[in-house]
Amino acid sequence: MTDLTAMGTRAAAVKPVLQKLSAEERNKGLLAAAEALEAGTADILKANERDMESAVENGMNSGLQDRLRLTPERIGAMAEGLRQIAGLPDCIGEVLEEFQRPNGLKIKKVRVPIGVIGIIYEARPNVTADAFGLCFKTGNAVILKGGSDALHSNAEIVKVLRSALEACGLSGDVIQLIEDTDRAVTVEFMKLKTYVDLLIPRGSAGLIRSVVENSTIPVIETGTGNCHVYVDKDADLEQAARIVYNAKTQRIGVCNACESLVVHSAVSRAFLPKLAEVLAPKNVELRGDERVQQVLADCSPATEEDYEKEYLDYILSLKTVDSLEEAIQHINRYGTGHSECIVTENSEAAERFLNEIDAACVYWNASTRFTDGFEFGFGAEIGISTQKLHARGPMGLKELTSYKYTIYGNGQVRD
Amino acid sequence: MTDLTAMGTRAAAVKPVLQKLSAEERNKGLLAAAEALEAGTADILKANERDMESAVENGMNSGLQDRLRLTPERIGAMAEGLRQIAGLPDCIGEVLEEFQRPNGLKIKKVRVPIGVIGIIYEARPNVTADAFGLCFKTGNAVILKGGSDALHSNAEIVKVLRSALEACGLSGDVIQLIEDTDRAVTVEFMKLKTYVDLLIPRGSAGLIRSVVENSTIPVIETGTGNCHVYVDKDADLEQAARIVYNAKTQRIGVCNACESLVVHSAVSRAFLPKLAEVLAPKNVELRGDERVQQVLADCSPATEEDYEKEYLDYILSLKTVDSLEEAIQHINRYGTGHSECIVTENSEAAERFLNEIDAACVYWNASTRFTDGFEFGFGAEIGISTQKLHARGPMGLKELTSYKYTIYGNGQVRD
Repeated sequence: MTDLTAMGTRAAAVKPVLQKLSAEERNKGLLAAAEALEAGTADILKANERDMESAVENGMNSGLQDRLRLTPERIGAMAEGLRQIAGLPDCIGEVLEEFQRPNGLKIKKVRVPIGVIGIIYEARPNVTADAFGLCFKTGNAVILKGGSDALHSNAEIVKVLRSALEACGLSGDVIQLIEDTDRAVTVEFMKLKTYVDLLIPRGSAGLIRSVVENSTIPVIETGTGNCHVYVDKDADLEQAARIVYNAKTQRIGVCNACESLVVHSAVSRAFLPKLAEVLAPKNVELRGDERVQQVLADCSPATEEDYEKEYLDYILSLKTVDSLEEAIQHINRYGTGHSECIVTENSEAAERFLNEIDAACVYWNASTRFTDGFEFGFGAEIGISTQKLHARGPMGLKELTSYKYTIYGNGQVRD
Repeated sequence: MTDLTAMGTRAAAVKPVLQKLSAEERNKGLLAAAEALEAGTADILKANERDMESAVENGMNSGLQDRLRLTPERIGAMAEGLRQIAGLPDCIGEVLEEFQRPNGLKIKKVRVPIGVIGIIYEARPNVTADAFGLCFKTGNAVILKGGSDALHSNAEIVKVLRSALEACGLSGDVIQLIEDTDRAVTVEFMKLKTYVDLLIPRGSAGLIRSVVENSTIPVIETGTGNCHVYVDKDADLEQAARIVYNAKTQRIGVCNACESLVVHSAVSRAFLPKLAEVLAPKNVELRGDERVQQVLADCSPATEEDYEKEYLDYILSLKTVDSLEEAIQHINRYGTGHSECIVTENSEAAERFLNEIDAACVYWNASTRFTDGFEFGFGAEIGISTQKLHARGPMGLKELTSYKYTIYGNGQVRD
């Protein structure tokens, strides 16, 4: 069985080393890692082939197989991702605040790495390089636990990354992979609080729930999005249809896709047939309340579960409301605090929606699909936080940092 | 058994109400609450008397009895605390960042309340009013679970606060108290994730550990402080003795008190006798390594447990090191990430210590006792965070807030 304490000890041991690296040295490591990934393409593909063979044998579905599969282009994209991270501005050491107290103490609040970050994810080997890049850029050590289906791919990628770092005179222990596929080891990892400062689960709702329930390490929950578009009585209905079409169908399997439409009763007769027409080429299944069904003949009934569900599929639930208040209540009740949108030309209604909806990202007249670190201009993304502690919404580099206070005195003591 | 779901539902129901209150309305509520505490002094003292009688019967020690006891002065201080919180600047609604994307989307990052905060604490009834004040000021609803020894006192204080708020036309449900003393209820509370956004334990290390182990709600750990003072070879030894004296003895039962001295071997013979002399009037027991014992005849041996221990008592552990590196390693190994100090006249050594020590607050030539929201000028404090997520070090009002992104478009969809 994997000795997690030993892994934790090694990660802790590189913290002071990481702490001393300059931004240039970290960027140099990232560029070397990118080059090594490209140079190691043949070996990585060979390892991935082994995973793919098992996946086929085990009857993995084609969607998951696609996520697991590596190609020279995909490995090139991983390398390119690391180069892009190297090119982003550095934020470690930034002085966030600086003030002096009447007793003469000078206090600085300085941005520092979090320390050791654990990441638990499923069968997408590109996450391995990506998570390493974001953590290393911000001076954090990372311990990865990837899905067992991607074990050989992940192990080879980590081997390549470690060798590249070591060739630069850096410690390979800034990235470690738990290769044990025993579930008990994963649960033990979630309790490795002595060594790990933050645990980020990336994957299905089930994975995230398991981490939240078992972890004693602080967790950032990411990625559950039951996102709504509310079409107000004062909406531009053409615009509304375009936004819903984009938010629902542009990419269905992502957390910022729209799962539910809320429509004001004053415009439902005018809007819903238009929407149905726009969605028709994508064969989106519609599930609505009675009033929606009265307008749309081929809409099936929506149950309570429909309103709670993140479909990640060509399905949309529909709800009729008689007021903005009712829309806000419905969304605050069923939403997951991810991304919500109002379509309206009425600025008073929009401001109220923006203020009263309790979610990471609240949109006025734009698609929920923009909730994304790149779309926000962060240059990178480790996930979308749906909790309110530490980080909310798209998490880029700054969200992988903490701070400390350094206090400069000349002998002050407290009375 | 207490219906926690009902309590959670009530707390969730006041969130939009709180969201709409202006800073003035919240301050008015705080001032009304302060007045009500003073007007209710007789009833609060009567309830406290019941708790005190049980405490005496149950043989509670005198230190805890002192924490539990209320007097007219102490109730006055609670009221004064609420008035001070009312007088602090408001931070809700503050625009933290504002930027525009090339596609025309305008993105604002706005400070918002966290939502519902749970606080689990021990037998100090003043925490009841204090925690309410900080949470209400920042637009949060609060659910309190106080120690069972203070049940009658807490229940009466909460009754008074709720009546005062209701008399102002506000909902009393912004503050709720779990009166059930069944431990199973407390554990259930730690899992009330659907309704509670943040859980803060305030009290002993055992309480905090139990919350970390059981909670599925995000937790901020507060208050475990195994704080060190390192006396460098280039220290002003007079200053060092004054700082250690203050950090160790000014108040022993607090998390920012010094528990361990680390001394450079080059100055230990000169420094330790001086320190022993300074500490003598306070009868501080000294427990040191062999080299310390060679210098100080009446120093007992320090064990591994001593270096790990937060004494909260007139005891000091002592460790000799031969270099700054060794001091940093020792402190990073045994410290709890709270407050650490270097005493030195050497700025290079100081900078290295400030950078490499992994703690919330790192001091150069000042007492660790300054780690405190008031001493930092925050005007208030809910605790000292020793974790790296969300808040680190003294937590004032801003640390009880989150943020959201509001995004202004004109029909943007994603390609």
